[in-house]
Amino acid sequence: MEKWDGNEGTSAFHMPEWMQIQFADQKQEFNKRPTKIGRRSLSRSISQSSTDSYSSAASYTDSSDDETSPRDKQQKNSKGNSDFCVKNIKQAEFGRREIEIAEQEMPALMALRKRAQGEKPLAGAKIVGCTHITAQTAVLMETLGALGAQCRWAACNIYSTLNEVAAALAESGFPVFAWKGESEDDFWWCIDRCVNVEGWQPNMILDDGGDLTHWIYKKYPNMFKKIKGIVEESVTGVHRLYQLSKAGKLCVPAMNVNDSVTKQKFDNLYCCRESILDGLKRTTDMMFGGKQVVVCGYGEVGKGCCAALKAMGSIVYVTEIDPICALQACMDGFRLVKLNEVIRQVDIVITCTGNKNVVTREHLDRMKNSCIVCNMGHSNTEIDVASLRTPELTWERVRSQVDHVIWPDGKRIVLLAEGRLLNLSCSTVPTFVLSITATTQALALIELYNAPEGRYKQDVYLLPKKMDEYVASLHLPTFDAHLTELTDEQAKYLGLNKNGPFKPNYYRY
Amino acid sequence: MEKWDGNEGTSAFHMPEWMQIQFADQKQEFNKRPTKIGRRSLSRSISQSSTDSYSSAASYTDSSDDETSPRDKQQKNSKGNSDFCVKNIKQAEFGRREIEIAEQEMPALMALRKRAQGEKPLAGAKIVGCTHITAQTAVLMETLGALGAQCRWAACNIYSTLNEVAAALAESGFPVFAWKGESEDDFWWCIDRCVNVEGWQPNMILDDGGDLTHWIYKKYPNMFKKIKGIVEESVTGVHRLYQLSKAGKLCVPAMNVNDSVTKQKFDNLYCCRESILDGLKRTTDMMFGGKQVVVCGYGEVGKGCCAALKAMGSIVYVTEIDPICALQACMDGFRLVKLNEVIRQVDIVITCTGNKNVVTREHLDRMKNSCIVCNMGHSNTEIDVASLRTPELTWERVRSQVDHVIWPDGKRIVLLAEGRLLNLSCSTVPTFVLSITATTQALALIELYNAPEGRYKQDVYLLPKKMDEYVASLHLPTFDAHLTELTDEQAKYLGLNKNGPFKPNYYRY
Amino acid sequence: MEKWDGNEGTSAFHMPEWMQIQFADQKQEFNKRPTKIGRRSLSRSISQSSTDSYSSAASYTDSSDDETSPRDKQQKNSKGNSDFCVKNIKQAEFGRREIEIAEQEMPALMALRKRAQGEKPLAGAKIVGCTHITAQTAVLMETLGALGAQCRWAACNIYSTLNEVAAALAESGFPVFAWKGESEDDFWWCIDRCVNVEGWQPNMILDDGGDLTHWIYKKYPNMFKKIKGIVEESVTGVHRLYQLSKAGKLCVPAMNVNDSVTKQKFDNLYCCRESILDGLKRTTDMMFGGKQVVVCGYGEVGKGCCAALKAMGSIVYVTEIDPICALQACMDGFRLVKLNEVIRQVDIVITCTGNKNVVTREHLDRMKNSCIVCNMGHSNTEIDVASLRTPELTWERVRSQVDHVIWPDGKRIVLLAEGRLLNLSCSTVPTFVLSITATTQALALIELYNAPEGRYKQDVYLLPKKMDEYVASLHLPTFDAHLTELTDEQAKYLGLNKNGPFKPNYYRY
Amino acid sequence: MEKWDGNEGTSAFHMPEWMQIQFADQKQEFNKRPTKIGRRSLSRSISQSSTDSYSSAASYTDSSDDETSPRDKQQKNSKGNSDFCVKNIKQAEFGRREIEIAEQEMPALMALRKRAQGEKPLAGAKIVGCTHITAQTAVLMETLGALGAQCRWAACNIYSTLNEVAAALAESGFPVFAWKGESEDDFWWCIDRCVNVEGWQPNMILDDGGDLTHWIYKKYPNMFKKIKGIVEESVTGVHRLYQLSKAGKLCVPAMNVNDSVTKQKFDNLYCCRESILDGLKRTTDMMFGGKQVVVCGYGEVGKGCCAALKAMGSIVYVTEIDPICALQACMDGFRLVKLNEVIRQVDIVITCTGNKNVVTREHLDRMKNSCIVCNMGHSNTEIDVASLRTPELTWERVRSQVDHVIWPDGKRIVLLAEGRLLNLSCSTVPTFVLSITATTQALALIELYNAPEGRYKQDVYLLPKKMDEYVASLHLPTFDAHLTELTDEQAKYLGLNKNGPFKPNYYRY
Repeated sequence: MEKWDGNEGTSAFHMPEWMQIQFADQKQEFNKRPTKIGRRSLSRSISQSSTDSYSSAASYTDSSDDETSPRDKQQKNSKGNSDFCVKNIKQAEFGRREIEIAEQEMPALMALRKRAQGEKPLAGAKIVGCTHITAQTAVLMETLGALGAQCRWAACNIYSTLNEVAAALAESGFPVFAWKGESEDDFWWCIDRCVNVEGWQPNMILDDGGDLTHWIYKKYPNMFKKIKGIVEESVTGVHRLYQLSKAGKLCVPAMNVNDSVTKQKFDNLYCCRESILDGLKRTTDMMFGGKQVVVCGYGEVGKGCCAALKAMGSIVYVTEIDPICALQACMDGFRLVKLNEVIRQVDIVITCTGNKNVVTREHLDRMKNSCIVCNMGHSNTEIDVASLRTPELTWERVRSQVDHVIWPDGKRIVLLAEGRLLNLSCSTVPTFVLSITATTQALALIELYNAPEGRYKQDVYLLPKKMDEYVASLHLPTFDAHLTELTDEQAKYLGLNKNGPFKPNYYRY
Repeated sequence: MEKWDGNEGTSAFHMPEWMQIQFADQKQEFNKRPTKIGRRSLSRSISQSSTDSYSSAASYTDSSDDETSPRDKQQKNSKGNSDFCVKNIKQAEFGRREIEIAEQEMPALMALRKRAQGEKPLAGAKIVGCTHITAQTAVLMETLGALGAQCRWAACNIYSTLNEVAAALAESGFPVFAWKGESEDDFWWCIDRCVNVEGWQPNMILDDGGDLTHWIYKKYPNMFKKIKGIVEESVTGVHRLYQLSKAGKLCVPAMNVNDSVTKQKFDNLYCCRESILDGLKRTTDMMFGGKQVVVCGYGEVGKGCCAALKAMGSIVYVTEIDPICALQACMDGFRLVKLNEVIRQVDIVITCTGNKNVVTREHLDRMKNSCIVCNMGHSNTEIDVASLRTPELTWERVRSQVDHVIWPDGKRIVLLAEGRLLNLSCSTVPTFVLSITATTQALALIELYNAPEGRYKQDVYLLPKKMDEYVASLHLPTFDAHLTELTDEQAKYLGLNKNGPFKPNYYRY
Repeated sequence: MEKWDGNEGTSAFHMPEWMQIQFADQKQEFNKRPTKIGRRSLSRSISQSSTDSYSSAASYTDSSDDETSPRDKQQKNSKGNSDFCVKNIKQAEFGRREIEIAEQEMPALMALRKRAQGEKPLAGAKIVGCTHITAQTAVLMETLGALGAQCRWAACNIYSTLNEVAAALAESGFPVFAWKGESEDDFWWCIDRCVNVEGWQPNMILDDGGDLTHWIYKKYPNMFKKIKGIVEESVTGVHRLYQLSKAGKLCVPAMNVNDSVTKQKFDNLYCCRESILDGLKRTTDMMFGGKQVVVCGYGEVGKGCCAALKAMGSIVYVTEIDPICALQACMDGFRLVKLNEVIRQVDIVITCTGNKNVVTREHLDRMKNSCIVCNMGHSNTEIDVASLRTPELTWERVRSQVDHVIWPDGKRIVLLAEGRLLNLSCSTVPTFVLSITATTQALALIELYNAPEGRYKQDVYLLPKKMDEYVASLHLPTFDAHLTELTDEQAKYLGLNKNGPFKPNYYRY
Repeated sequence: MEKWDGNEGTSAFHMPEWMQIQFADQKQEFNKRPTKIGRRSLSRSISQSSTDSYSSAASYTDSSDDETSPRDKQQKNSKGNSDFCVKNIKQAEFGRREIEIAEQEMPALMALRKRAQGEKPLAGAKIVGCTHITAQTAVLMETLGALGAQCRWAACNIYSTLNEVAAALAESGFPVFAWKGESEDDFWWCIDRCVNVEGWQPNMILDDGGDLTHWIYKKYPNMFKKIKGIVEESVTGVHRLYQLSKAGKLCVPAMNVNDSVTKQKFDNLYCCRESILDGLKRTTDMMFGGKQVVVCGYGEVGKGCCAALKAMGSIVYVTEIDPICALQACMDGFRLVKLNEVIRQVDIVITCTGNKNVVTREHLDRMKNSCIVCNMGHSNTEIDVASLRTPELTWERVRSQVDHVIWPDGKRIVLLAEGRLLNLSCSTVPTFVLSITATTQALALIELYNAPEGRYKQDVYLLPKKMDEYVASLHLPTFDAHLTELTDEQAKYLGLNKNGPFKPNYYRY
């Protein structure tokens, strides 16, 4: 039973001055807008959990033919420091350029650096991190450094590291242990090198997928005595934390930044609204107008997909298990059906459920020739791809990420990204979305690190609403958006603080 | 700080069998669809709190010229019962017809009657109610009766009672105390007649605006010993309950049905999406295409107004105080401005904030000739109408609900509904929305009445998610919408019960 | 076979200086915007042909109980003039007020008056007119007067005359012969009084429906020797003219203003986009979200209806006979069906075809209970209403313009406006649209009257594109819209005159 | 002055039986739907004129290192035929596979082959063609062959030929003279080889860009004596034909298929609605939500761009020179501005005018940092790119088709495709659109070839409406769209033939 707690829960929470929302008539710090489009990033950006994707991210290969494992190399940066392990420290300059471009695209983090410069809210923090290592996360890492933290970092995915960026970080003195194409043994070795250090013990964890947290639980449980908190970004990692919490085994506070309002709405609703079109176009060059589409699931992702396709002239059907979301689909103008009812007639099937076996072999058998099947949900289990690996079906790879599965009678199904996430595999995540995520992570670290004794128990918390609002406010200048400030009289009338939070916790946006 | 509680809170909650969600392949009970449009209702329907409106609801007058106060009349229904006080018991037949038409338009309540017939989940309940008295609430009342409850009822508003409907209820044996055009003294007298009865003491309260609750607190505080709970619908009433709770004075559990998901999304987002157009058209016959509009506030109501006007070809600007809602406005394609920036150029100003003095005399002074000003928010304070009552300005009533306020230089501002709610004053609330509200009220009463000792404390609760979902499911047949049922394997994978609840409490829809 | 004629056809056409398009950086004459919303018009405005509607426009009755026929009265205006016949000359003052309000809402005509004041392009013109007589047509008439014309006027419809406006025109010296509630004999008598005058012979005709033209053809064919042209607005009247032309009987040039671009797009696409929602709401208070709707016909009217309903969350199906419009419906995201395929499932049926018996008794028999049926097309024949006048069906009038037709098994169909035009009967035509039409009529009269010998033969012409563009340009200031002017270099590159016309005749917009 | 000609012009035109529109209840020939997505086409498809693009289409290079000019090679196909000149006849098998895939995606041409098989409407036709040589045009060519024509073919663009497809056509016996990377001399040599043949003289021309027509005019004017007509697809080629016609030098009938309804609406409105998003995403990975965009020109292309960007949450401004299109922009909800008014604030500038120097150096100087500039119009002159080639500006190629132009103060403008067409350079043309174009070309050839003496003069004609409708009808099965057939009674009422044409020529769709 949900109990209303108004804003009480956050009333104790005090934001330092530098963290006040800027209203439009205050001096803008952002009037020189950054270059949002730099040179092409070395590769696609990545925002979701390591466990969701990348089993065949072949496009991330670089041409360096050096076959020696980085673990076997002796490398030093220009200051003689060798506390890192990257592919090739000599790529640092190129990586630095990438980071500089990303800095221009992440105004909120740069503003944070500037505003918090005097105060150093992370002074004394020793952060061990495990995330994708890209130019955007480099900006995050260097922001944490600028705020006073010491950081050690490993990659949360064996394919996604940009070697040049890792080199640039190492060159700047960050102990980074990561390269593209790690083996599983390498993967854990890198994590261990971040944690298991003489004379340095982490007091904060920033994790993406839960592997780092898992490693410390397993190998160095005593370390948690000094750890002030965990910040976790991915669905998977958050799920693990709640399981720990339920089992009574969570021994430090953890912050679930995955479910913050801004992250949810941007990563899911707004980002998917664009990436569904992008992913389908890049893989199939299809025309959307007039196509019949069924979208399985009407959560934030499904809502985004449906809105975009409807706007492009597709005829969209929705399936749902939840009556409330189902009623929303109805009111938004989509026919709510069971998949079987439309499976023979649709041109495209899109899964957005987070569930498994939503599209079964039986469905696939009944689809019409040339039907496109893809997955925008949270896992790679939504489409029962395994059921298509049978002898009577022929697979034909027609281009990268596009397979034709051919039935004995010649019918072809067009399967995208082998059922893995279309938006990660076949489209890009805009830097703007990554900026929101990284800013949220930084603020969560600051909050957990500075929280007075007792504010957080050994439990999983959502980001304080005031911080969620603060992240949003840092991104408004991008749109030249001018926020209205409450008058004293209005604030009193509404019973609100003029700097927020502005809504009760149960508010749904 | 919001704590995630998964679905634990509701796991103890057991829904009786008749309350299971019906999936599409089960036998439909609704295949004979009801007439949704009956004869014109006696007057506009009403769904919001009594305190929000109606100070000049002149359109509700009926032609009966009988000047005798109902309190001075001796009336009996055809069975000789005289425990009621209505305008004219002879109007019962006409009112019954209205109720029958409304029954056809409220399939969910009728389904509830049918499903719960055997079990009588309200057997023993003694409900005292204080709501608008319309055909739709009559259907609710008679449903409560069919489920086993005894009811006594007063009106929550001195203008809104439909005398014919009140007569029909009295004829059927419901002790109803209400008529159109009560004095304030009448108002409290009616409430008292519901509560202060020999040999009958209420054990449940259904309130809309908090006046009934207030009266019992003030006059009969001991009554709360037997009362199992309060169900409150209005923003105002809910606010009062939270204040009582904060002050430690709430002595029974209360259910806030105002903030249930279905009610919020329907009453606000979806209903306002339609009523903003309807209200503007009926009052001004204006064309929307190409008009410049500023919408103050981007909550559910503002989102609905913006979406509708954008779709009709208006150019819409938004003002906001909350950075998260502001960022949503940006992503939805609206320029976020401060009111001053656009006030000289817009054709229409719409307030949707729940705040006060959002549109000030200064703004009004700067508007261009023939600018339309109206309020869709929660109170009549959003536009500072009082500031327009100055000698240099001339008011000209050009039609019902439309005033021209004329400046000395001839500039005219078109003020709608004198700043009261446009959607209540100048448009109608679809029965479909009223059906959702009434169903929610009925289920909240059932839940509070049947809850085992200890499930609810002396606090304010939101409707259990499972019941919110149930209300939604009861309305899906209207759209011929077919819900998908989880397989056992999927339910296990997701860790969900196949009958819901399907989402964690913090889910935002 | 359509032959491309580039802009040659219009190259000979010279617009006088006052008719040049105003670009945004030129001095605006409209910076003081008019009041768009006056007092409520005496009644709904009317823009379409007399033959399309009004057989039961009972709502137009006024309360004046004077039973004497205007033909039997002796009336004089305040200057002693008696060359008119209206209901009651004493109502002139009230009518004048209505005209003044309309003037504020018709900036283009007022601008025309101002720009053409010196030149008097209609000096010497003797115009006989037959249109609806409303405040808006009064503004047109007085504009024609201000441009130098003498006018005599009758009503094109026996119900639609606003007596007060007619009185005001008579008081100002216009010979007007019209009142509300004429008999058919009155109707022709009024027309005859306009035409058959001693010492005055018309040289221009402005017609709406073709009755005036027909009368002159029949009674005074010699009059055409002096007539320079006919301007006709209605579909019906235009059709008659083309028939005359085909038969070789058209003896003067005629201008088809019905098919001008601005009129078509505004009267049909943009106006219907709004009036379909307005008409349905005012009659049924229904909610659009989630409703299933079939729209018959995907011309401009159908496109407008579909766009509006889709935007409000309805699920829309389309029927078409023309494969090109059908393909457009597909690309715009509507399922193209035959009416039979969806008739059992839809909540609303809307006809927009201009065809007859599109909805047959067979369709009506198969509709589900409470299905709403209405007509937005060009005639009252689209729904076979006659087929519903059979003994086994019961008709129940539930409110003005809304009938329930009840089948023996209790099924009810909700028939709006008895199958006549919903947008005329149950919604209003915005003054902005009427302004476009009236401006177009004025310019067509000017063009035909001033055209050099030989420019127009005895044939039916569309409005010269340059004039169509000019009408549009006169309405841009309403939207604070700033047109871009071609540079000399660009005009040369495109081979265009900087003042237009800007498109070849076959351009489709 | 446009004269209405009803349907008279086409009434003489008789469509053979196989060309009747199929209504939905007739037997469908298309129930086995084709694979719409084959293997990745060898390269992007091409639909517009050769003169519009491709000066730097570097991506079309293939890896064949053979440096010998095809003109110097001796090649024979497997049947010993050597009447062709392609890069490498051995690539024929691979090209054949491409053609087979395209066949599946072009159901209308395949249906045409089937329906016209017996009749051979092009028996005796000798067609010389000059188009892009791709899989889709190969399907067209082989369809013409199947209908009885002999064909000889050259490329209309020196870069766009797919060598494998050319080889496959040569292998099948088509005299094809084309390869990727022709010199200008090669270009004219190839055309000459098509025309200047012993014992074969063309009687039909299919041209794209007008170069073939130009060559014959210049070199072999006598050939026109036997030529029955020219079919021209491109804007440029059509323009040349009208100039010839004006100058009285057009000596055969020509068919302007560029301005057919289906082609215009699909190539422009619907295709651009999708390709603007696709082109921007592929080049910049930008997020559309909240971006401020100015679209120059509100013709079909501009309408498509504006609709798409608005739907994705961008804020869109429009500039226009034509008051009618300007008023449409207003009614569609876009602010109409002059470019200067918004140039400092927008994030994206898109030109869709067909005009020159719409975006000048002065505009570029005033844009904000990181503004994106691109062209969707008809030529590469809309943006004054030449003005950016000055010493103080630095150009930086950041990825294919994306340049940063850097001002001395560090401001960067992001220029896409060097100002050439974004939709051709950075996005793909869906096969569905190419199918419409190719079908239109085939029908135009059939019509001109079979037209009785005198139907067509030495002039430029639009496609007969009935054929335009027929093309549309052939594409309806793709959408499972069911056309409604007029009853005899309805056809009579409307004065239409049941098989069309259904609209007067001036109808605007």
